[in-house]
Amino acid sequence: MPAPRIALDAFGGDACPEPEVEAAVAAARAGYQLLLVGDEARLGPLLERAAGGAVPDGIEVVHAPDVIAMDDTPARAVRQKPEASMPRAFDLVLEGRAEAVVSAGNSGAMLACGLFKFRRIRGVDRPAICTRLPMRGGYFQLLDAGANVECRPVNLVQFAVLGAVYQAIQLGRERPRLAVLANGTEEGKGTDLTRAAHQCLREHPSPNFEYRGYIEGNMFRGDVDVVVTDGFTGNIALKVAEAAGAFIGDEIKALARGRARLALGGMLLRPAFQHVRELVHPDYYGGAPLLGVRHLAIICHGSSGARTLTTAIAQAARLVEQELTPKLTRAIEEHGALTDAAKGTEAAAGAVAKENAS
Amino acid sequence: MPAPRIALDAFGGDACPEPEVEAAVAAARAGYQLLLVGDEARLGPLLERAAGGAVPDGIEVVHAPDVIAMDDTPARAVRQKPEASMPRAFDLVLEGRAEAVVSAGNSGAMLACGLFKFRRIRGVDRPAICTRLPMRGGYFQLLDAGANVECRPVNLVQFAVLGAVYQAIQLGRERPRLAVLANGTEEGKGTDLTRAAHQCLREHPSPNFEYRGYIEGNMFRGDVDVVVTDGFTGNIALKVAEAAGAFIGDEIKALARGRARLALGGMLLRPAFQHVRELVHPDYYGGAPLLGVRHLAIICHGSSGARTLTTAIAQAARLVEQELTPKLTRAIEEHGALTDAAKGTEAAAGAVAKENAS
Repeated sequence: MPAPRIALDAFGGDACPEPEVEAAVAAARAGYQLLLVGDEARLGPLLERAAGGAVPDGIEVVHAPDVIAMDDTPARAVRQKPEASMPRAFDLVLEGRAEAVVSAGNSGAMLACGLFKFRRIRGVDRPAICTRLPMRGGYFQLLDAGANVECRPVNLVQFAVLGAVYQAIQLGRERPRLAVLANGTEEGKGTDLTRAAHQCLREHPSPNFEYRGYIEGNMFRGDVDVVVTDGFTGNIALKVAEAAGAFIGDEIKALARGRARLALGGMLLRPAFQHVRELVHPDYYGGAPLLGVRHLAIICHGSSGARTLTTAIAQAARLVEQELTPKLTRAIEEHGALTDAAKGTEAAAGAVAKENAS
Repeated sequence: MPAPRIALDAFGGDACPEPEVEAAVAAARAGYQLLLVGDEARLGPLLERAAGGAVPDGIEVVHAPDVIAMDDTPARAVRQKPEASMPRAFDLVLEGRAEAVVSAGNSGAMLACGLFKFRRIRGVDRPAICTRLPMRGGYFQLLDAGANVECRPVNLVQFAVLGAVYQAIQLGRERPRLAVLANGTEEGKGTDLTRAAHQCLREHPSPNFEYRGYIEGNMFRGDVDVVVTDGFTGNIALKVAEAAGAFIGDEIKALARGRARLALGGMLLRPAFQHVRELVHPDYYGGAPLLGVRHLAIICHGSSGARTLTTAIAQAARLVEQELTPKLTRAIEEHGALTDAAKGTEAAAGAVAKENAS
């Protein structure tokens, strides 16, 4: 099998296109096949410069004259700018010229491209953004990290299936441990949404994951491998985790500044801080896949540098080789009973709501 | 004015009643007036021992034969165990023998006692648990931290008023900056709930706070003094923040263990770690007030030691002296238009739901 070809949106990130161009050169030199998508006239000279004159064979520039900005309204931008670099990258996959997309662009627009261009896997109601967080002895996946602000039980149980398949590939291990994020671990805790999802997951054991019930915000102890939640809560949990870590680091740094003893302590402890940095920095793991659409799309932080993007390209190629999408498709097919049960709870809740409203 | 008398639930925390007894002795020695509520036969000897024979004047033991356990169902426990130490402590306030309650017990039962015994301040639909989190240059209040899992817009706008009054007292400064927690700062972000609350808060400027719009999970930068959210999201945000901090500390400690260089670095940096610990540890600030009921109740962590409880007693006394409850009552009265607007958005949403259902 030839190396998978990755379509890299050259005009995605906050500092584009320099980090993208640099990442393309680094990845191509490491043997990856790239389609670098964006304004040819700008990319040509930058590529020459980044590659020191010798642009590697693995890079092909695909012209896209337009750009979707971070503050563009996602769905509208995708509709009104079909020639922008991001939608063109998705088109290249549909045309069979690439196998996956990597972009550090507007994540709402990534979602829109995923939905309208790649389209949902048959049986998936909503795709989810799956992010990685560190925990004792490893890392877990948190999804949805922000694609779906208002969720129904069927979304949560499908996120469970999607996240479990992805994490199983990541860990090289069957049946990862999975939990639903809630405000306590007792049965009665949670919202109508989490209780309905919890009941369905408990009553429909899956070959793809070991369901562990609810987990609290204390998710870093190494107890579960996949944490499922709605995109509103997931987004907040993710950002709180990132921000709390950064805050502590900043406080320590600020206190050590100008104090010789503390500064020396910080220097000696540098390998430990570096260890924590490696646990949390996307340079070391890449981006967040959009799970539930018919081809692979990796969403990177807007602030991604060349190294994060290079890692994301490698991540995308590996996931294509490991057949992530076919595995997701098969797992969703095999969880029809779980999906139906979740839809059943909604029908029941809807009937009650209708009764209450009338 | 005589010093406020605080009813301390002696059988609240996980390790009760030893930390409670110790805290009572320490607080009484510092001049506070305590009613120590619990089984007299057990408390007497423990008090003698903790006080080295000379029990301070400021402590009076009030007998309560029963105990509400951490795993008791809150509302039922309060109904079925009227003679338990926690409900008795609330009764003492109603009887005019104390001005506030402090307990490290079952927080659901604290909420139930607050609702059924203290009752809500006129005009308040739901009380909220208000917790303190550190940020650059100070700290902010996050509410609701878990009392109300499913919220309506009127709850969120009332949490805003309650939290702002509390934080103004804490900071000794008028009009703290306030924001609604969401998955992004743009107008269109958030859920139906946050959008409705956001609109009401924006359209009804308050003398009690400066409304800053949405804030993301990155709440630690010192931008706002009060963050408002539903109790499900708030509980998760709080626990993620605590757990992420603890995780980083544990990782650094684990890595430094047995490595002389790193261990020395850790030793030199100890004042910085201690600084972070002081920012986040309840020993240094006490407990979380239940805001929105007619008397003061402070909810402490189940794991609270004597020092946290002592701090919480001082905190309670100070809040009584600073007239927290009268100020909350007045502010709620003065925000009738805001409450009405929030209820109006619900009526509108309800009409739509009814239409959709029919």
